Amino acid sequence: MKNGDKNDPAKKYFDSNTTDRERAIFEGAITLGALYHQFVGASIHDPNVLEKAMEETATAQPFTKTAKVEITPPKEKQKPPYEYPELTGNMLKINISTEYNDERVELGMKYVSELDYPLMFIKKLKP
Amino acid sequence: MKNGDKNDPAKKYFDSNTTDRERAIFEGAITLGALYHQFVGASIHDPNVLEKAMEETATAQPFTKTAKVEITPPKEKQKPPYEYPELTGNMLKINISTEYNDERVELGMKYVSELDYPLMFIKKLKP
Amino acid sequence: MKNGDKNDPAKKYFDSNTTDRERAIFEGAITLGALYHQFVGASIHDPNVLEKAMEETATAQPFTKTAKVEITPPKEKQKPPYEYPELTGNMLKINISTEYNDERVELGMKYVSELDYPLMFIKKLKP
Amino acid sequence: MKNGDKNDPAKKYFDSNTTDRERAIFEGAITLGALYHQFVGASIHDPNVLEKAMEETATAQPFTKTAKVEITPPKEKQKPPYEYPELTGNMLKINISTEYNDERVELGMKYVSELDYPLMFIKKLKP
Repeated sequence: MKNGDKNDPAKKYFDSNTTDRERAIFEGAITLGALYHQFVGASIHDPNVLEKAMEETATAQPFTKTAKVEITPPKEKQKPPYEYPELTGNMLKINISTEYNDERVELGMKYVSELDYPLMFIKKLKP
Repeated sequence: MKNGDKNDPAKKYFDSNTTDRERAIFEGAITLGALYHQFVGASIHDPNVLEKAMEETATAQPFTKTAKVEITPPKEKQKPPYEYPELTGNMLKINISTEYNDERVELGMKYVSELDYPLMFIKKLKP
Repeated sequence: MKNGDKNDPAKKYFDSNTTDRERAIFEGAITLGALYHQFVGASIHDPNVLEKAMEETATAQPFTKTAKVEITPPKEKQKPPYEYPELTGNMLKINISTEYNDERVELGMKYVSELDYPLMFIKKLKP
Repeated sequence: MKNGDKNDPAKKYFDSNTTDRERAIFEGAITLGALYHQFVGASIHDPNVLEKAMEETATAQPFTKTAKVEITPPKEKQKPPYEYPELTGNMLKINISTEYNDERVELGMKYVSELDYPLMFIKKLKP
């Protein structure tokens, strides 16, 4: 039922020229922006628990079907009791997919050193 | 220079079939998701100051050209010193526009009572 | 080693009149404020996963020893695909304990209807 | 009326042994934790606008009387349109004061390179 939707009750609020592919992109991009800005800054104890929570939060968003989050904390440890890092964009990798009617889009986020920026991008559109 | 961009250094990370209109939608949706999840929960003293900060944050995002944020706190006051509300989606209205090359998109967010949901939507595409 | 600490490398940054009990209160209150403002706004799919992530984040804070988070989403469901609520203060109950040297403090957060406010409070000090 | 308060309607929720000084510390620490985790991650366009919003949010918290926030973005600029940094703990300096009845406490947050940590601390208690 999360599948893009003949019966989408919000459809009428959108410009009627919006294609299904554009809608799938729109929903995925919201999910990326939301995930990032909700969780960046959180203290990381067990990265896996935070990854799981971010994946669950992502798939609670309308039309987001799958989500995979990887957090790679820095290796060098700080001094206890101040040893736990907080989540920043350069530790984070996100892959999600969204569906709206017959369209399916894969989107991602990763730190790009060339830009020194946590880039969000459209990875794959349905041909 | 924020204008959509022949020289966008991130273009190569995107599926090469992504249209300029899709890219403008993508960037705007990230901005909406980011804004919402960054600021919801903040204690509101002077709504105008928070509105201004949200607008500035929005236009710091790549390709987001304009942003207008309206916060309408509930009228009934709580007891001092616990009288300041915190920002929730149903007090919030956002309008932004993004540009990528010759495409321009208007996007928004408002609380929709019919859905009991803070809906984000594509308001207007270039015909 | 998370235990309040003869060797706390940050001690010198504090007013030297700060008692151990005051320090335990200070650290607990930071944890409460941090937890609340980090996670409020997150979309809730499986409440247990978010509870667990909040507990892990809490105990990553210096001197916070235990954390118990309970999220009670509203019973009435919204329409799919817009059916997942986002975390607000009135769904949330937090209990944590902190230790600094021989002092131990219990602190909490719960929605207090009398105040219409998500109140944070000091539950129990060592007699 | 934000002044610590004979008529504090929340007082009964606290351990009755809580001193006024402890309560002032408690409220200040919540404010620090809240400010930090609410705003870290925000894209910075004009630092002054974000500073002002953080100060307003801080003084909306019960018993927090004054707040001064300084944001120092890194000097080296990234490439447009990806040139705006996001707020991290090591750009941030916060000073606040709280009052509860006759007690007044000064608290702060700054990045401490020795600890490689955004430390929150109790700066000055009333003698």
